[in-house]
Amino acid sequence: MEKKEKKAVKAITSMNEDFAKWYTDICKKAELVEYTSVKGCMVIRPYGYAIWENIQKDLDTRFKELGHENVCMPMFIPESLLNKEKDHVDGFAPEVAWVTHGGSEKLEERLCVRPTSETLFCEHYANIVHSYRDLPKLYNQWVSVVRWEKTTRPFLRSREFLWQEGHTIHETAEQAVAETEQMLEVYADFCEHSLAMPVIKGKKTESDKFAGAVSTYAIEALMHDGKALQAATSHYFGDGFARAFGIQFTDRENTLRYPHQTSWGATTRLIGAIIMTHGDDSGLVLPPAAAPVQVVVIPVQQHKEGVLQKADELCQKLKSLGVRVKTDDSDNSPGWKFAEYEMRGVPLRVEIGPKDIEKDQCVCAIRYSGEKRTVSLENDLETFAAAVKELLETEIPQGMYKKAADNRAARTYQCTTIDEMNAALTEKGDGFIEAMWCGDPECEDKVKELTGAGSRCIPLEQRRISDKCVCCGKEAKHMVLWGKAY
Amino acid sequence: MEKKEKKAVKAITSMNEDFAKWYTDICKKAELVEYTSVKGCMVIRPYGYAIWENIQKDLDTRFKELGHENVCMPMFIPESLLNKEKDHVDGFAPEVAWVTHGGSEKLEERLCVRPTSETLFCEHYANIVHSYRDLPKLYNQWVSVVRWEKTTRPFLRSREFLWQEGHTIHETAEQAVAETEQMLEVYADFCEHSLAMPVIKGKKTESDKFAGAVSTYAIEALMHDGKALQAATSHYFGDGFARAFGIQFTDRENTLRYPHQTSWGATTRLIGAIIMTHGDDSGLVLPPAAAPVQVVVIPVQQHKEGVLQKADELCQKLKSLGVRVKTDDSDNSPGWKFAEYEMRGVPLRVEIGPKDIEKDQCVCAIRYSGEKRTVSLENDLETFAAAVKELLETEIPQGMYKKAADNRAARTYQCTTIDEMNAALTEKGDGFIEAMWCGDPECEDKVKELTGAGSRCIPLEQRRISDKCVCCGKEAKHMVLWGKAY
Repeated sequence: MEKKEKKAVKAITSMNEDFAKWYTDICKKAELVEYTSVKGCMVIRPYGYAIWENIQKDLDTRFKELGHENVCMPMFIPESLLNKEKDHVDGFAPEVAWVTHGGSEKLEERLCVRPTSETLFCEHYANIVHSYRDLPKLYNQWVSVVRWEKTTRPFLRSREFLWQEGHTIHETAEQAVAETEQMLEVYADFCEHSLAMPVIKGKKTESDKFAGAVSTYAIEALMHDGKALQAATSHYFGDGFARAFGIQFTDRENTLRYPHQTSWGATTRLIGAIIMTHGDDSGLVLPPAAAPVQVVVIPVQQHKEGVLQKADELCQKLKSLGVRVKTDDSDNSPGWKFAEYEMRGVPLRVEIGPKDIEKDQCVCAIRYSGEKRTVSLENDLETFAAAVKELLETEIPQGMYKKAADNRAARTYQCTTIDEMNAALTEKGDGFIEAMWCGDPECEDKVKELTGAGSRCIPLEQRRISDKCVCCGKEAKHMVLWGKAY
Repeated sequence: MEKKEKKAVKAITSMNEDFAKWYTDICKKAELVEYTSVKGCMVIRPYGYAIWENIQKDLDTRFKELGHENVCMPMFIPESLLNKEKDHVDGFAPEVAWVTHGGSEKLEERLCVRPTSETLFCEHYANIVHSYRDLPKLYNQWVSVVRWEKTTRPFLRSREFLWQEGHTIHETAEQAVAETEQMLEVYADFCEHSLAMPVIKGKKTESDKFAGAVSTYAIEALMHDGKALQAATSHYFGDGFARAFGIQFTDRENTLRYPHQTSWGATTRLIGAIIMTHGDDSGLVLPPAAAPVQVVVIPVQQHKEGVLQKADELCQKLKSLGVRVKTDDSDNSPGWKFAEYEMRGVPLRVEIGPKDIEKDQCVCAIRYSGEKRTVSLENDLETFAAAVKELLETEIPQGMYKKAADNRAARTYQCTTIDEMNAALTEKGDGFIEAMWCGDPECEDKVKELTGAGSRCIPLEQRRISDKCVCCGKEAKHMVLWGKAY
């Protein structure tokens, strides 16, 4: 008891005091991750992994509804296979882990642990795609990948991380482009509706494309500290990989042709994005769709007659409706429990004590807003159940979304010169900057050099801030979203 | 069209002609796996992976109902960590893959790709377990592991395979032993009820234990060719790992003690077991619980008015009940479709043509038995739906189980001497032999040497075949199940 109570007292670092420490405090104290002796890798603990399972289930359902199928490729890629597509190997070879020995024997050819699996999918497609009848193949896999990063942070950047990678292959360029765009929409919709996280859909500039892609699309979210986070990407490959790997098919006119490909992925980074979009100084704030526990029922004065029984009734009622709910009837104090489940980001707390029972009501405390609300238990708990469902499915996700969108709006600045950019960043702090660009990579580099803010993406939804490039003053081609990034 | 029709003509090798070829034919032609340029590794294709997803979902639900939580450990183990428990490293070091370089840099310490994760779980437990209040921890993870096998076969033995590994830690030996036994029961129940696969629960002999275990339990199944297959294992570790890794906790009497641990696992090998338990010369035969498609509706004379519409009605009715069903209205012939879905092991085929519609009925063809049965479509398809549910949930799994159990019974021989063992194996073919054993490892080795049949396990359900060891004639301690194994 005494030991546990202590835990609540040790508060986390305040966000404003030290954002990076606030972040790692949450990761550790909400028991999402733990460090290991494997440098740059982490244990994803039950509470963190349950968030990932909810993300997985949600995305996987969306993918399958669109006709995608799951497969599993080997985790190793022979060096010669990785080398087949030039841009791709140039992009990834410097950061892969190499297996050189099996048991006590040296391997004839080194194998890298997959940093991504385009090469393996291409080899497979070359084996199984022969005719237009074999197309499209809409494949996905849920695996972990390895990239030998120098500096690492839980969820945001680690040497091994979990992800899904979709890999599709199509008869025509149009179909592949449509798939690339469709999957960007899927990710955006998932982030907005399931994670209550506003995102901006855009295209990456040439210098920021995936290694081997014709074009890369991404969704960009803004974190509490004003830094951008790329939440998912979707790539169109054209027929470049097909040519490099010799994938050909007989088309409807009986002509041999190269198919067009895409790939798209989202990672455990999304958990980092949730933390930094919604979290506050009391800890994690989880969107209901991702929360391992959506509702916690806390009995107050639980030794009094009928309290535990009523708490259990509420819990069972919600459980019967598919709500992920638990009652904490441990002998910790209600105050300790309040702090604990706030730290863990449980979206809704239901308090029930003798006085509530007398009035046939309970108190619902909403995590993201701190609001407390009295809810009637009349009508055989039906009113209560309906109110909780409404909160979890509509009010809380919409409220969280709005709060995050308001924060992003307050931190999005329109600028027409480099000086304006620097002034905004200095006066208002990091954020998104909307500014025009001529399309020249030199200007892109220079903006980053002079402001610290790189190009995040060319938003699909374009507006005309001015007619001239923010850097060189020549005619502008695109509005670019600029910012510092994770 | 022409090309596809050809496929049905190319029949698979007969089981009696060449069992190994029959097996790989099914793996390839039912599109479960495909080979890759990564030696000893394979692609699990959508149909194979969907079977694994069904196995996963079923087992995962069972684990969670018993309070287990999923986590994710790194895929790498530093050499020094692997070396901490002597028996364990002796067992695994000869067959691990070693990562020696990250990018272009040589690592200070080699990392192996996990062959199993006891060492990582132990390191984690040492970090998070301090008091009896922290116990038990009931963790599991779904990942892939790597063992550098010399000879490999799809699902049965590959350098990388998918599995779940449960790792639990408890206050007392009794609790850990109970967990070990409980998980053996979970696996046995899953195999018998979900996979329709009879298994024998037993304890491994000393020489066959997991590296580092006090005792290893397993479930053993008998394949069509009379060879045994270990379908899952459950290990009790005592406090050996805890001592090696310095995991200690303060018990209820405030004394520092070592906790007791278990681990248990099942792998994609189960897919191999399904193939070799239920398959026949027409292809795969899937138990309904594992089947990606449980029912296929085949319209006959589908160009005739009303046929496709009725087929769709049947399909929608079953779908609304949660049955995994599809209609094949492609322009392949019904005969081609029959052969194709038989090859793919779909448990139930529903045929519907103009004559059936006239009589308000359809034909149900049961894959495992070949039986065809007329089912009424009266009563708003309710009779039909009830009949299909009954077939999928009860009749088919029970019938498949009985067929496999009968096969096993016909191939299980009781023997009292080595000569009897050899005679049985020669005359009746490979199978399980029940014979007594004195407990001496020398006799165990000698039996294997003289008959080719090793000890599979000491069945939990013991019978007394005779009083004497089948090998040395001394007093017998246990009835052992002997056999050749995958």
